[in-house]
Amino acid sequence: MTTPASTPSQASGASVHSLPRTLTRDLAAHDGQTVRLQGFVHARRDLGGVQFVVLRDVSGLTQCVGSGLHLPLAESSVEVVGTVKAHPKAPGGFEVQVKDFRVISAAVEAPPVEIPKMEWNVNPETMLDYRVVTVRGLKERAALRVQAELVAGFRDHLITEGFTEISTPKIVSAGAEGGANLFPIDYFGHPAFLAQSPQLYKQIMVGVFERVFEVAAVYRAEEHATSRHLNEYLSLDVEMGFITDEEDVMALQNRVLVAIMARLKERAQAEFTLLGATIPEVPAHIPRIPLLDARALVTEKYGHQVGGKDLDPEAERLLSQHYAETEGSDFVFVTKYPRAARPFYAHPDANPDGTQSSEITRGYDLLFRGIEITSGGQRIHDYGMLMDSIAAYKLNPTSLEGYTEVFKYGMPPHGGFAIGAERLTAKLLGISNVRYARAFPRDRHRLTP
Amino acid sequence: MTTPASTPSQASGASVHSLPRTLTRDLAAHDGQTVRLQGFVHARRDLGGVQFVVLRDVSGLTQCVGSGLHLPLAESSVEVVGTVKAHPKAPGGFEVQVKDFRVISAAVEAPPVEIPKMEWNVNPETMLDYRVVTVRGLKERAALRVQAELVAGFRDHLITEGFTEISTPKIVSAGAEGGANLFPIDYFGHPAFLAQSPQLYKQIMVGVFERVFEVAAVYRAEEHATSRHLNEYLSLDVEMGFITDEEDVMALQNRVLVAIMARLKERAQAEFTLLGATIPEVPAHIPRIPLLDARALVTEKYGHQVGGKDLDPEAERLLSQHYAETEGSDFVFVTKYPRAARPFYAHPDANPDGTQSSEITRGYDLLFRGIEITSGGQRIHDYGMLMDSIAAYKLNPTSLEGYTEVFKYGMPPHGGFAIGAERLTAKLLGISNVRYARAFPRDRHRLTP
Repeated sequence: MTTPASTPSQASGASVHSLPRTLTRDLAAHDGQTVRLQGFVHARRDLGGVQFVVLRDVSGLTQCVGSGLHLPLAESSVEVVGTVKAHPKAPGGFEVQVKDFRVISAAVEAPPVEIPKMEWNVNPETMLDYRVVTVRGLKERAALRVQAELVAGFRDHLITEGFTEISTPKIVSAGAEGGANLFPIDYFGHPAFLAQSPQLYKQIMVGVFERVFEVAAVYRAEEHATSRHLNEYLSLDVEMGFITDEEDVMALQNRVLVAIMARLKERAQAEFTLLGATIPEVPAHIPRIPLLDARALVTEKYGHQVGGKDLDPEAERLLSQHYAETEGSDFVFVTKYPRAARPFYAHPDANPDGTQSSEITRGYDLLFRGIEITSGGQRIHDYGMLMDSIAAYKLNPTSLEGYTEVFKYGMPPHGGFAIGAERLTAKLLGISNVRYARAFPRDRHRLTP
Repeated sequence: MTTPASTPSQASGASVHSLPRTLTRDLAAHDGQTVRLQGFVHARRDLGGVQFVVLRDVSGLTQCVGSGLHLPLAESSVEVVGTVKAHPKAPGGFEVQVKDFRVISAAVEAPPVEIPKMEWNVNPETMLDYRVVTVRGLKERAALRVQAELVAGFRDHLITEGFTEISTPKIVSAGAEGGANLFPIDYFGHPAFLAQSPQLYKQIMVGVFERVFEVAAVYRAEEHATSRHLNEYLSLDVEMGFITDEEDVMALQNRVLVAIMARLKERAQAEFTLLGATIPEVPAHIPRIPLLDARALVTEKYGHQVGGKDLDPEAERLLSQHYAETEGSDFVFVTKYPRAARPFYAHPDANPDGTQSSEITRGYDLLFRGIEITSGGQRIHDYGMLMDSIAAYKLNPTSLEGYTEVFKYGMPPHGGFAIGAERLTAKLLGISNVRYARAFPRDRHRLTP
C-alpha cells in the first residue's frame, strides 16, 4: 500500500498543484481563474458524457462539472483543479469546470445514510448510531459550529472583564449537591464520582482570582431520557467575587449574552440561515420577575396551575410567551427563588427590614424562548450563615466539610451562573433534541460512538 | 446573622463608597488621590499606635497604613478607602493611608499555613491538603494565571488559522490506546471508562471541520507517582486534515508555540518575574532530529546509553542540552519514531524508494528544556493501511471497530498533536512537580480537595 494521497506533488499536473488551496466560500474572488479545491464528495451524478460532483469543504459546497471523470463513492476526499465560472443555479453562484480530478482518499463503502438528504429527527437513533459519518451533515455541522462560536463569545467577553479561566477536577470524592445522580468511578480501588458541577471549586477560586470561568464537561446520572437533558454536557461556568448581590451576576450574564449574540451575528449568520433560525436580540436590561409573581402570572393570564415549588416546563413556556408578547424579549430572569427550590448554599434574600429571609433566596433562573438555560445567584460566603443553612436543610455538616472548609477564610460576597452549552445551542437553532447539539451525546442508553 | 458585607452602601462613609473600585496595579495613576480598594488581608502587623495591612487583590499587593484599626485575621476580605502616597519601599512603590477600613467578610480561623511565607516544595502534601487556601499563594496563583494565558494563546491562534473548537466525550466504551490505564465508570450498570485522549474523536471531526482543537481534561490511571505525571490533566489537542505529512503538523505546532509565548510576554511577564522564570524564544524553525540519530547523539556526545526504543528522561535532558548549546533553542522535535514506540494508528513513513516503511512512522515528540511536552504526528487515514497495521500490531480488529469505522468514509490525510498544559506550565516556570501547575491535582493517593 502506498500513500500518494499525502504527497500531492506526485500526482499528475504538478504545476497546477503548486496553486494554493482555495476554499469554496472564496470562489467569487476567483471568477474566471484556475483554482485548486480540496474536500469531500458531498453528492455525485454521472450523466455518461458529463459528471457532476458537489464538493464539500469546511466553508461550503461547490458544484464541479467535468467529463471522463471516474467518480469515487460519496464522502471520498478529492482534489479538483478547474476554472471558476459564474453559474446562478449552482450553490454559491459559481461552478468549477474540472481540469484535473484526483481522489485523495477513496471511501471504501457508501455511507449508511445519504449525507445530503439527512433531516433532523429522521430515525434519530440510526442517525446517532452512525454519528461518525452523519455528523458531517450540513445541519449537524452548522449546529456544532454555532456552539463553538457561542463558547468563544462567552469566553472572550469574560476575559475582557478580567475573568481568569480555571480547570477544576471532574473526579471528585463527593457530589456538590449531595449524593444523587452521580456516576461512580473506581479510583485506584477508592470510590469516587464524576463531578456534577464545578460549583465548590469555582467558589474556591474566587478566593484566588476574584473572577473566574470554566468551560468543561459535567456529568449527571439522570435516569430519565428527555429532549432537554444529556448525561454529559458542556457547562459554561462563571463565578464572581466582591459583588453586592445577585443583580451584579444577572447584569454580567446580560452582558455575556449580548457579546455571544454579537459574535454569532459576526461569525455564524450563515449557519443560522441554513437552519432557518434567527439570532435573538438581547435587551440591554433583560426583564426580571420574582418566581412567586411568575407563578401567579401564568395562572392568572393563561389559567395554568403550576405544580411544585418551581416553574414546570409549561409555565416556563407561557412565561416566555408573555415576555415575548409584552416586551419583545426572548429572555426573562426569574428571580428570588424560594429556599425550597434551591440548594443550601444559595444566599438568603434580605427582608424589607434588613433581616435575613428564611424563605427566599438570591437565586435566579434565566428562561430563553420557553426553557430554562441557566441557574445562578448569590452564594453564602459567611461561614456562620453557611453552617446555619446546613442545619436548616437538615444536612450533615461533617459530610460537607470538604465544601465548608474554605468559608473559614474570609470569602468575599460572590455569585455566579452556569449555562448548558448544548441546551442554549439547541434552543437558538430550533433543534428539538439537545442530543443533536453535541457531537457524540451520552444518554441513558448510548455510550457509543 | 445579617449580611452588611454584601451591601456596601450600608457601611459608614457612604459617600466614599460610591467611588469605583481601584485595583492595586493601578495605584500609580491615582497618586495623591483617594481610592477604594477591595481584597484579602495578605499580611498584617499591629504596632500599637499604627497598623499595617498588606491588601492582596487579583492584580497585586498594596501596603495600607492606618491607626486605630481593628485588624481581622489574615485572609479576611476587606475594603480600604484611603489616600495613595508614593512610598519607594512599599510593594509596587505606593502605599495607601487608610481613611476608612471595613471588614467585608472576616476569616473565622487563621489559615493553616502563612500564605505570604509559602515556598514551593515545603511540605508538599500539607500544602495540597490545604489547597483550598494555599492556592491563594502568590506563586500558586501566578502559575495558574500563566496556564490560563497559555491556553488562551493556544486557542486564539488556532482560531485565526481556521480551526474549530470541539467537545468530545470523556465517558467512553473503550480506550483509544487499548485497555491499559483506564479508570472504570459504572454507567447505568454498563462498564465504561474515562477517556485517555480525544484521539479518535478529534480524527472523526477532521471529516467535519477539517481542522479542530479541544481543550479538556483527560484521564490516565497510571499507578506510578512521578513529578511529571497527573492522573487528570488538561490536554490541548489539535488535529488537522488535508496535510502533506507530519511536517505540516510540526510547522503548525511551531506557529502555535510562537503565539503562546507572544501572549505570555504581553500578559504574563509579571508572573514570570515573580517566579524567576524566563519566557523562551521559540525559533521560527524549531530544530528537528530523527529519533535514531538523537539516540546516537546522546551516546556519542555524552556517553549515555539509551535503553528501550524511545528516549529515556536522561536522554531527553541531554538532547535538550545539546540544542540549547549548539542552536540556542529550548525546543527540539524528535522525529521519525519507530513503530515499536508508537500506536497502531501512527502513519508509516515512506522509504527512499517511495514504498511504505515497516519500521519508521511519521510520529514525533517535542522536547522543551529537557522534557517531552508533546506527542504528535501523521495518522493513518487509509482504511486498508489501517487494517494492515492492526494486523501487524497483532490487535483484534473487531474490538477496534469503533475506531476503524470512520476510515471507511474517505478520511483525508491528517495529523495532530497534544500538549499537556500542566507539564508545559511547570517546565516554563521551573516548578519541580507538575501537581503545582494544577489547581486541584489528582494523583495516586489524592482525591481531595
